[in-house]
Amino acid sequence: MAKILRINMADLTAKYEDVPEKYKYLGGRGLTSSIIYDEVDPTCHPLGPHNKVVFAPGILSGTNAPTSGRVSVGAKSPLTGTIKESNAGSAWPQRLARLGIKALIIEGQPKEPGKFWLIYINKDGVKFEPADEYVGKGLYEVYPKLFERFGKKVSIASIGVAGEYKMAMAGVCFEDREGRPSRYSGRGGLGAVLGSKGVKFIVVDDEGGPGVEIVNKELFEQGRKKLTEALRSHDVTKPKGGLNTYGTAILVNIINEAGGFPTRNFREGRFEGAAKISGEAIFENNKKRLGKELYNHACHPGCIIQCSNTYYDENGNEIVSCIEYETTWAVGANCGIDDLEAVAKLTWLCNDLGLDTIETGGTIAVAMEAGLLEFGDAEGAIRLLDEEIRKGTPLGRILGNGAAVTGKVFGVVRVPAVKGQNMPAYEPRAIKGIGVTYATSTMGADHTSGYTIAPEILGVGGKVDPFAIEKAELSRNFQVTTAFIDSTGHCLFIAFAILDIPSGFEGMVEECNGVLGTNWTTEDVTRIGMEILRKEREFNEKAGFTKADDRLPEFMKYEPLPPHNVVWDVPDEELDKVYAF
Amino acid sequence: MAKILRINMADLTAKYEDVPEKYKYLGGRGLTSSIIYDEVDPTCHPLGPHNKVVFAPGILSGTNAPTSGRVSVGAKSPLTGTIKESNAGSAWPQRLARLGIKALIIEGQPKEPGKFWLIYINKDGVKFEPADEYVGKGLYEVYPKLFERFGKKVSIASIGVAGEYKMAMAGVCFEDREGRPSRYSGRGGLGAVLGSKGVKFIVVDDEGGPGVEIVNKELFEQGRKKLTEALRSHDVTKPKGGLNTYGTAILVNIINEAGGFPTRNFREGRFEGAAKISGEAIFENNKKRLGKELYNHACHPGCIIQCSNTYYDENGNEIVSCIEYETTWAVGANCGIDDLEAVAKLTWLCNDLGLDTIETGGTIAVAMEAGLLEFGDAEGAIRLLDEEIRKGTPLGRILGNGAAVTGKVFGVVRVPAVKGQNMPAYEPRAIKGIGVTYATSTMGADHTSGYTIAPEILGVGGKVDPFAIEKAELSRNFQVTTAFIDSTGHCLFIAFAILDIPSGFEGMVEECNGVLGTNWTTEDVTRIGMEILRKEREFNEKAGFTKADDRLPEFMKYEPLPPHNVVWDVPDEELDKVYAF
Repeated sequence: MAKILRINMADLTAKYEDVPEKYKYLGGRGLTSSIIYDEVDPTCHPLGPHNKVVFAPGILSGTNAPTSGRVSVGAKSPLTGTIKESNAGSAWPQRLARLGIKALIIEGQPKEPGKFWLIYINKDGVKFEPADEYVGKGLYEVYPKLFERFGKKVSIASIGVAGEYKMAMAGVCFEDREGRPSRYSGRGGLGAVLGSKGVKFIVVDDEGGPGVEIVNKELFEQGRKKLTEALRSHDVTKPKGGLNTYGTAILVNIINEAGGFPTRNFREGRFEGAAKISGEAIFENNKKRLGKELYNHACHPGCIIQCSNTYYDENGNEIVSCIEYETTWAVGANCGIDDLEAVAKLTWLCNDLGLDTIETGGTIAVAMEAGLLEFGDAEGAIRLLDEEIRKGTPLGRILGNGAAVTGKVFGVVRVPAVKGQNMPAYEPRAIKGIGVTYATSTMGADHTSGYTIAPEILGVGGKVDPFAIEKAELSRNFQVTTAFIDSTGHCLFIAFAILDIPSGFEGMVEECNGVLGTNWTTEDVTRIGMEILRKEREFNEKAGFTKADDRLPEFMKYEPLPPHNVVWDVPDEELDKVYAF
Repeated sequence: MAKILRINMADLTAKYEDVPEKYKYLGGRGLTSSIIYDEVDPTCHPLGPHNKVVFAPGILSGTNAPTSGRVSVGAKSPLTGTIKESNAGSAWPQRLARLGIKALIIEGQPKEPGKFWLIYINKDGVKFEPADEYVGKGLYEVYPKLFERFGKKVSIASIGVAGEYKMAMAGVCFEDREGRPSRYSGRGGLGAVLGSKGVKFIVVDDEGGPGVEIVNKELFEQGRKKLTEALRSHDVTKPKGGLNTYGTAILVNIINEAGGFPTRNFREGRFEGAAKISGEAIFENNKKRLGKELYNHACHPGCIIQCSNTYYDENGNEIVSCIEYETTWAVGANCGIDDLEAVAKLTWLCNDLGLDTIETGGTIAVAMEAGLLEFGDAEGAIRLLDEEIRKGTPLGRILGNGAAVTGKVFGVVRVPAVKGQNMPAYEPRAIKGIGVTYATSTMGADHTSGYTIAPEILGVGGKVDPFAIEKAELSRNFQVTTAFIDSTGHCLFIAFAILDIPSGFEGMVEECNGVLGTNWTTEDVTRIGMEILRKEREFNEKAGFTKADDRLPEFMKYEPLPPHNVVWDVPDEELDKVYAF
């Protein structure tokens, strides 16, 4: 039987607890949000002794369900003050699940402030080691040393120097299949919470673990096949399809064309340099430099979509993996930077320092808005990361705390954030539905929590006018379904396939029923999604959030966005409908 | 008939408007809060184009009522995000009132960002002049130049460099009777709002103004005499009484003795160096240095209490005026500094830069908590102000935004703030009633909004056990009465006398009735106070504040405070009773 592993950093103890009945059918986000809801006082200080960090593999993580290696990390966020779940794909949750661990709860704070630890978990239990020798170093330097020491068959969760400094844009890092520190639960500063608990690394060795129990193997297998088939046949998710060829950065030209590609700190919706930082540019440059077509790879074992790119320099040497759509936008277009080599370098720096790339790009853009740098100054942007943030200078500390704090410190009014979290790569004035998600999500401005872009721009799961302002229901439906998918361990990108291919959706539900022994239907997906959102919402309400927080920044209401010259005009009443369930 | 003067900085226009019926009987805080409530969207960005700054003399300001030269400044605060009223004593509101101006509303923002203006108001109207030559300079350098230019018979409201930088702890400065830039509407960053509107100075010349209309002169005179008599006879407020001899800093030894004197960022409630920075020390040092007993002076014409001290150096040269209790505590005990010369220098720097001394001291203490300086490092503290804040370096920008932002940037959990505003000089764990005021005030942590210290420590207006936790009613009563007093133009210090001497209280009401032609009774004082608080509270609710914001910081609940080793144990339910009216 799977257990909950509870680690207390105040006395360096670990205990394995039976899974309470109420958590039995939960995984991923559903489980992290439930534990945070049950155990964390919503009014506690995010970096104080009463916050907790919960890691939960999805329901299917550790099985051979396709594209199911997501881990949810949950806590009260120091960036937003809300409950937070941020997920990443890696072998790490697969190993944790195969050790029979359904959730890992980290609580307490070390008696010695500033002390950092490595936690090692294997079939025999938990060990704690001082991590002093790794503190202050870049993760690209540290990861090879750890793999040398613990062997290639372990997985590592970690924080970079940003987390050590307790910066509110510090992410939690997981290795990719090549052992690079490149897969992030980036959003919401969960790395800072881990840092406040003195946790530098969590190394998981699953050798000899019991594996994931599957109650109904036949049903699981049936679902797995349906979903696999859907993923293999949809144009977006199939091998050599859109994501496998161009990565998520395939979206650059599409969103730019739609006039919803935020440029120079959300001053414009179209970037003249978009093509130069697009997925196509990455693919073509690689082809020229390597002399062959390079398709993308998986971030975790068992992924069919395989959207992770690697970018190579003129000499065919790897610069970085992976440049996501969000990243090339954040440190590119949003900063007025159209130089892909600079984008790659900035991506590498984020990975090395342990930073959320979205918040990093948003923050540099606000610093540019404040006049610290000119828009387009790639060298300056690199310097901010490599010198200021890395060294934890006062300026680095400001930036490390994200766009909203940077805006506050420098008196900048144009800060495109909701609940303290910078908006990702879709302009809400030009694509209203995603604005409704930004405004109302339990997570602050977050595209993944209700990706209305699918029908608004991509024609996936239907077709909806991006300028239409009645988007409460659309956003709600996406938010609800997403909360469920985030609980399965599947990557959200399966949504492209299952929105268009009903048997794929059935397959996902059957996989879960197979593992858990449940009889869930499509209606249960909605019910479970709503239950998760209700808990998250209630946590936020207790923390002091109201509908006044479910709003976009004021400047978007009075500043028209080129090229469509649109303002944010979704009525407050429409926003307030989203959570009326 | 008095008018409302409305100035729009977007097009540099001014217009005089009739006073609407609903504002006819309001003044000071009642008027600023009503105008902000009526005209400012609670969700607007405090530094954006839709915030406004309102200046209102009290009902009695400009008359010869004793101690009635207070001006209220109101806006949505960039420090707290709440509505804010901060008042100061100066001849400035007396002149404004005598020009027949009941309120001055500043709205809009200059087309040219970073441009600053001097506004000159006299009986003939309003003029605008570029203020470029004064930008970036200390106010001690600038004020003499302005008085040289405009003559001694004008008054000046201004911002220092802190306001130019739009720092959230920038105050609005008014001159004292000697023309020093030393009287501040300090709290809540109203100087930053003025800075965001490009307003550097507001010079008021009342020559030839119509004066303040008094409807019933006889009644006014009767009230004036009663209040004057009360002020002249109460031990705290009489000539050569407590405040006139030792200034507000007379409280240092008293509060320290009670164990409620926050020391080293609220780590302890008693400071070993308290006596060295007390009002008695100021008086004795002056006596030694000047060879005579020096009693304090008035901050504005017509004050009977006269509590403003001046501190002299070994050679008998003035260092600064005035070292308030809050200031000697904030930059002294709270930073572990027991050197009065350093306290005087830090006070001078706050005045010169345009900073709220309370928030400044609280911020330095949090910076010390973060390890930037050692507690007690006076030289370091001076350097932070004179170099970092003055130059607007990144560190200076952090500090200039107050204790909560500084804590956030450096990952400090022990930040003694409520709604983003640092606590003043009374430890809520040791004196519960003031904690109830801090938690529930519409202004963030603010002692002046409900000064329960009077009965809890000073035995004024009754005697109450400071450790008792049933303080909702006490705090409410003080908050209600204060909202009224803050509307009269009287200094809150008249409360010492009128709480103990009923005829003084009657006198205050009669003065108001005399000026306005009303028939207010004691019950009306309560009704009017409640009406003001209800508006402020509703503004905050619309801005997104909830009872979760009416709480003290978490660390005070689990960290016992020496010497009494008490934690914050007032139940949330008690706090929620305060505004149940």
